Amino acid sequence: MRNVVVLTGGVGGTRLVDGLASSCDDEQLTVIVNTGDDFDHLGLRVCPDLDTVMYTLAGFAPEERGWGIAGDTFVTLGALARLGAPDWFQVGDRDLATHVWRTHRLASGTTLTDATREMTRRLGVTLPILPMSDAPAPTVIETTEGQRIPFQNWLVEQRAVPDVRRVHSERTGPASPLVLDALADADLVVIGPSNPFVSIEPILALPNVRALVAEKPCVAVSPIVAGRAVKGPLVAMMRTLRGVDASAAEVARLYADLVDIWFVHHGDGATLSGSIETDILIERRRERARLAAEVLHTGRRLAAG
Amino acid sequence: MRNVVVLTGGVGGTRLVDGLASSCDDEQLTVIVNTGDDFDHLGLRVCPDLDTVMYTLAGFAPEERGWGIAGDTFVTLGALARLGAPDWFQVGDRDLATHVWRTHRLASGTTLTDATREMTRRLGVTLPILPMSDAPAPTVIETTEGQRIPFQNWLVEQRAVPDVRRVHSERTGPASPLVLDALADADLVVIGPSNPFVSIEPILALPNVRALVAEKPCVAVSPIVAGRAVKGPLVAMMRTLRGVDASAAEVARLYADLVDIWFVHHGDGATLSGSIETDILIERRRERARLAAEVLHTGRRLAAG
Repeated sequence: MRNVVVLTGGVGGTRLVDGLASSCDDEQLTVIVNTGDDFDHLGLRVCPDLDTVMYTLAGFAPEERGWGIAGDTFVTLGALARLGAPDWFQVGDRDLATHVWRTHRLASGTTLTDATREMTRRLGVTLPILPMSDAPAPTVIETTEGQRIPFQNWLVEQRAVPDVRRVHSERTGPASPLVLDALADADLVVIGPSNPFVSIEPILALPNVRALVAEKPCVAVSPIVAGRAVKGPLVAMMRTLRGVDASAAEVARLYADLVDIWFVHHGDGATLSGSIETDILIERRRERARLAAEVLHTGRRLAAG
Repeated sequence: MRNVVVLTGGVGGTRLVDGLASSCDDEQLTVIVNTGDDFDHLGLRVCPDLDTVMYTLAGFAPEERGWGIAGDTFVTLGALARLGAPDWFQVGDRDLATHVWRTHRLASGTTLTDATREMTRRLGVTLPILPMSDAPAPTVIETTEGQRIPFQNWLVEQRAVPDVRRVHSERTGPASPLVLDALADADLVVIGPSNPFVSIEPILALPNVRALVAEKPCVAVSPIVAGRAVKGPLVAMMRTLRGVDASAAEVARLYADLVDIWFVHHGDGATLSGSIETDILIERRRERARLAAEVLHTGRRLAAG
């Protein structure tokens, strides 16, 4: 097995990516990241999932929180609030540098793919972190009350309170060429424990991506443990979007055409035949490496046919 | 005397503005600020002179330094440098909030005049601080070697080292309507101790401004003390642009059509007939109020005819 490609969104999937990055031996790991969460905040381009992956692999992310930069300060945020700027999005001072520099690079004509590669290399991260697309693909939440709210506003500003009726993607472009190349060359695709509706589906919905993944050996880690989401608003979404109680098996139905083997938590395997039960709670770094090793072990056998 | 209008650039003039703000009794003080220094840095609109005035009147500016915000931190600057961004322009974290918010407001269609008023009010400053124009009017330095360098790059990045052959203004618009109104209503115009070439002349060169000032009683404070500039590169500019040694009298020639009475430092009056000698070194706040009171006293008599 030479090439491993992982699809991920925010904190949960990134923890698996972190484990894979330290557990891949001879394999080349490529990370494909959801950009549906990306948005403009105060004129600055913010890419929450890309940043979570970048900061985590650079060793900057707080182990328990997953987003932002450990020990960051919030001086500019306070000064912005004093000037009357909205302050619902908590941007730290070090974090802000990423948004300022990325926005400037994009305005200078650099692609998001190239800007991400430049920044990750400066931060000492050498493995490819690929935004799913160089074109904006904003996820919009349609609530049961009929409102349409950009995803970050719904998640952070409105604390994911309004019930979700539909998840839209206002996609404007194709998958990035590097994403398509990575999938074409993949010996194994890993789907991280991320929200299927707002983290994984935006990637799969890009032209040709789902078909490429379907051709490949594919292992996934459940984002649900004992009926609860590892993180975020997935349980409520399963209810309003699919009319079901959240479970590993219900999530698995969403990828029935793609995933060969599911990793689920101890006790969750009964509802999903052929799954592998293990400890999939990986908040701590040593737990991430352990689960990643198990995933890679299974993936190698699967890829070998 | 009801309306006092002061023309100013950076640190020197701002110190006089600070004194006038605390010394005007019944008069309405209006500050007209050079925007020729304004530039885009990392995609953010930076207005050094406006910020110096705003921070000083809000009580944020370090008394001795004059620019930036006292006690500001530089976390984002450090993180930007790590990402590979140019770091020659020292932006503090609190200061950065001003640039981010202003850029966002301008991008939303707000004029610089309105954005400045919004911000100054949020910072507790009620007197009108008027950018000279809502349109960019970048000052470009042409060096004796024939290079054309945007002013802040010349001043800060290149430390004002290259000799100046000409000062250009790449003006694109008129004076702001509020500036013209303020000058039309002025009972006294005060020209602050700022660099005539790069701080005051950009204001005067806007359509109708010089003519309006010429009609008014006008008092000026010398930016030269005993042949030295209060601050900045004025002495070298007097030599390369005018071929003279810097003196209060040589500066006065530049405004011969405008200024009725000059305030010069003790010992400088001999070279400038009709000038008033006093202590014009006003780094400290109490000194600013004292000089401002003298200027206003003279101005009131002048305005009374």
